[in-house]
Amino acid sequence: MIADPVTGETLATTGGAAAGLPEAFAYARSEGGRALQAMSYAQRAAMLSEALKVMQTKKDEYYAISLANSGTTKNDSAVDIEGGLFTLGFYAKLGAVLGDARTLKDGAASMLSKDQLFQSQHLMVPIRGLALFINAFNFPSWGLWEKAAPALLSGVPVVVKPATVTAWLTHRMVADVIEAGVFPQGALSIVCGSSAGLLDALTPFDVLSFTGSADTAAKIRSHPVIARDSVRTNIEADSLNVTVLGEDALPGTPAFDLYVDNLVRDITIKSGQRCTAPRRALVPKAVMHAVAEAAAGKLAAIRVGNPRNAETVMGSLVSREQYDSAREGLALLNTEASVLFDGTAQPLIDADENSACMGATLLGVRDADAAVEVHRHEVFGPVSSLIGYKNASHAIDIAHRGLGSLVASIYSADLQWMASTAEALASSHGRVHVVSPEVAKTHTGHGNVMPGSIHGGPGRAGGGEELGGLRALAFYHRKSAIQAPSNVLELVEQHSTELKV
Amino acid sequence: MIADPVTGETLATTGGAAAGLPEAFAYARSEGGRALQAMSYAQRAAMLSEALKVMQTKKDEYYAISLANSGTTKNDSAVDIEGGLFTLGFYAKLGAVLGDARTLKDGAASMLSKDQLFQSQHLMVPIRGLALFINAFNFPSWGLWEKAAPALLSGVPVVVKPATVTAWLTHRMVADVIEAGVFPQGALSIVCGSSAGLLDALTPFDVLSFTGSADTAAKIRSHPVIARDSVRTNIEADSLNVTVLGEDALPGTPAFDLYVDNLVRDITIKSGQRCTAPRRALVPKAVMHAVAEAAAGKLAAIRVGNPRNAETVMGSLVSREQYDSAREGLALLNTEASVLFDGTAQPLIDADENSACMGATLLGVRDADAAVEVHRHEVFGPVSSLIGYKNASHAIDIAHRGLGSLVASIYSADLQWMASTAEALASSHGRVHVVSPEVAKTHTGHGNVMPGSIHGGPGRAGGGEELGGLRALAFYHRKSAIQAPSNVLELVEQHSTELKV
Repeated sequence: MIADPVTGETLATTGGAAAGLPEAFAYARSEGGRALQAMSYAQRAAMLSEALKVMQTKKDEYYAISLANSGTTKNDSAVDIEGGLFTLGFYAKLGAVLGDARTLKDGAASMLSKDQLFQSQHLMVPIRGLALFINAFNFPSWGLWEKAAPALLSGVPVVVKPATVTAWLTHRMVADVIEAGVFPQGALSIVCGSSAGLLDALTPFDVLSFTGSADTAAKIRSHPVIARDSVRTNIEADSLNVTVLGEDALPGTPAFDLYVDNLVRDITIKSGQRCTAPRRALVPKAVMHAVAEAAAGKLAAIRVGNPRNAETVMGSLVSREQYDSAREGLALLNTEASVLFDGTAQPLIDADENSACMGATLLGVRDADAAVEVHRHEVFGPVSSLIGYKNASHAIDIAHRGLGSLVASIYSADLQWMASTAEALASSHGRVHVVSPEVAKTHTGHGNVMPGSIHGGPGRAGGGEELGGLRALAFYHRKSAIQAPSNVLELVEQHSTELKV
Repeated sequence: MIADPVTGETLATTGGAAAGLPEAFAYARSEGGRALQAMSYAQRAAMLSEALKVMQTKKDEYYAISLANSGTTKNDSAVDIEGGLFTLGFYAKLGAVLGDARTLKDGAASMLSKDQLFQSQHLMVPIRGLALFINAFNFPSWGLWEKAAPALLSGVPVVVKPATVTAWLTHRMVADVIEAGVFPQGALSIVCGSSAGLLDALTPFDVLSFTGSADTAAKIRSHPVIARDSVRTNIEADSLNVTVLGEDALPGTPAFDLYVDNLVRDITIKSGQRCTAPRRALVPKAVMHAVAEAAAGKLAAIRVGNPRNAETVMGSLVSREQYDSAREGLALLNTEASVLFDGTAQPLIDADENSACMGATLLGVRDADAAVEVHRHEVFGPVSSLIGYKNASHAIDIAHRGLGSLVASIYSADLQWMASTAEALASSHGRVHVVSPEVAKTHTGHGNVMPGSIHGGPGRAGGGEELGGLRALAFYHRKSAIQAPSNVLELVEQHSTELKV
């Protein structure tokens, strides 16, 4: 069932288990795959541009769906809608540069014989299968296009299974581009509702990309097609992202102010329902109180409620289930933290206690070293926990206790401190975002995923890697070392272009 | 129990479950990891050179162990011993070029702000954990060093668990380099015997590399540390490699002769116990008989038996268990194939019917399209099956029915045929080896794994990727997008060098 999380109104319903999945998948592979791979990278890039144009004329409808189904304000809907279209356009541009080629060269050729007649060249060719995306509820648009753009550019047909609760927008976008006929038949398919049978329909040359919980990720990895048939899998799961205030950034400094501004923004954008939101805010122990006070002042100004009211700054969580889950998580974190700001008591604008609206909460962890839950339980809502650290190495240790996250950010004016901390955090974070007062106005934001930077993190975060510009194409290609006579390689390279990331 | 596969004599015994694995792993991570990562790439490369020197003085002992424990002739022992040391030396040379750096830059920096003050640079930093290798019985030396060389060069401590049946050589090599003190304490450890508790001792920042059966691979992927904690895993499993004779290569042509020579060599080297051996030999239907006849003539000259006798060309399988398994597999394939050459009836040299010695067998598949087992059951011994194909696209379809293999080779004199077939096979094979008469003397061999080329294949072959020159370092590093002010990035890049593959 698809509902309005503010009013509770039912918007749409989805069906049960889909029939004929193996046949549908076979059609996607043969018809969709064949048609896509008959095109060059530049032709497929042009196809992405066409899809973008089709959707740009329908943005008002997408915003209306997002408002009704995700309960988000216009600004928060834009993160998903504009973010998705921007990423699609980004890959259309990147792909055009690859020109007439149909395969990619990975690195240079190397000689295998002294007479230079026998060489090796690593080649990347599009996979022979399809790409199945099992997506999360928080980004019905961006979650589709950040995966589908590199897949389709690679010549790989896509089947997307959006999270049911917000499947409407994904469904509408897919229907729009299919109706407009910009993709070959079988290139893009959607399954809404039950996910039964999806994994069973995969074969060894397909790939699977999943965004969701660590529990579901574990089940996916243990499924026979993954465990036995080695279906290539990309997983993005839970993430206890950190944002770190530098030791130099005392109250009153520009870095301190930047930290507080960005913390409040990153907690509240999309009601904290971004996998990149900073769940753990690491600050020098001595300034913890000052940070709490400054952040509380700003959080108090965030009015929560029905996104249809212009007074509302922060809309709803995506469903009542998510609301309950966030409240439970908050209670769990409260066992080892104190409430420094409680927005849940604020009156809601045009919404009642049955809605999924939830004010922001800032917690303060009582004992950084003894705390356990704050490092492993992700509350997927407008919630973050301040943690006081003693020195730089203590901050890094605390960050690593998240056991792998998507993003860490650092705010400071001390260049050396930022450089060494960034390097140390790189081993446990897929992205490290460093902000000095110099880039206050130009930095791209802790929580924003730029399509040119990789998105994914080790360990608890799932160990996956998406985006990163042309790096994303590797997932949809097979790499093979072609060892061959030089005159054969020359022929192979006629259809190939160098992959430069 | 470690035994001589020819005489049955017991050579050594191994213990039960190892005690204190979590503590040993913690020591490797903290002491071994810290010491290795305090060094630059060039310093670690020099350390690999030192290890190589130590082992070069002890090669006679390694050959003696291999003779007794693997039942291999000097030539076949060399594939493992010299192959391992060559790969170690190869990485010592590659690593020296990386110089004083401690991290690697992946691609160029890209601007994230118009004023060029905020940039993104993808950085690869050594992982914070250890690398656990669970290795196969056929390469106790090469299997160790092809994995350990890139790991140690990356600054990552290694724990190796060799297959018990041939653990002696791995153990001796590890003991030799540890005794010589060339590696820091905790940098290299070995566990012999039971594998109980090994996976449970892993943590989310470790990596695991496994070479072995698809059954064990499935168990590994379903283990909680892999399924839930996303421990990065590389798997090399079963592989039904193909070798393809071109449509142009009629009997009497140089390409035909090359094909037969190489087929016989690749079937019999190390008694067919190489994961790269050609299990399926694809030839034009019309010349199947001629290939069989020519190959049978050469196979008849391969004398099998005790490798201590100078008359012996092909030694033993690695154990009686492997012998039984190969005989069973042969019986299975026989349900859909005819025996074209039966070397199992040949008299053995200095060995009796209780040894693990087994002559080579060439089968001919009766119906290429109806056959099932030949595409999914790997007989790990001196066995290959001829399969007749109708045309190039039929040959490619048959090859793909292996559902992902390590290597495909092509023999022809038709440049365009070789180029288009190579491109088509690249999507299901990690390596495509192309031989024309021009490179008869210089090509590196279907079955030989060159350290500069990637080793691994999709699907049934496990979906892994090893070697490939500096590409191998990616497995032992975490990639992170560092988004930072330009002056911070400058400091980060001081310790970094560009990764060029």
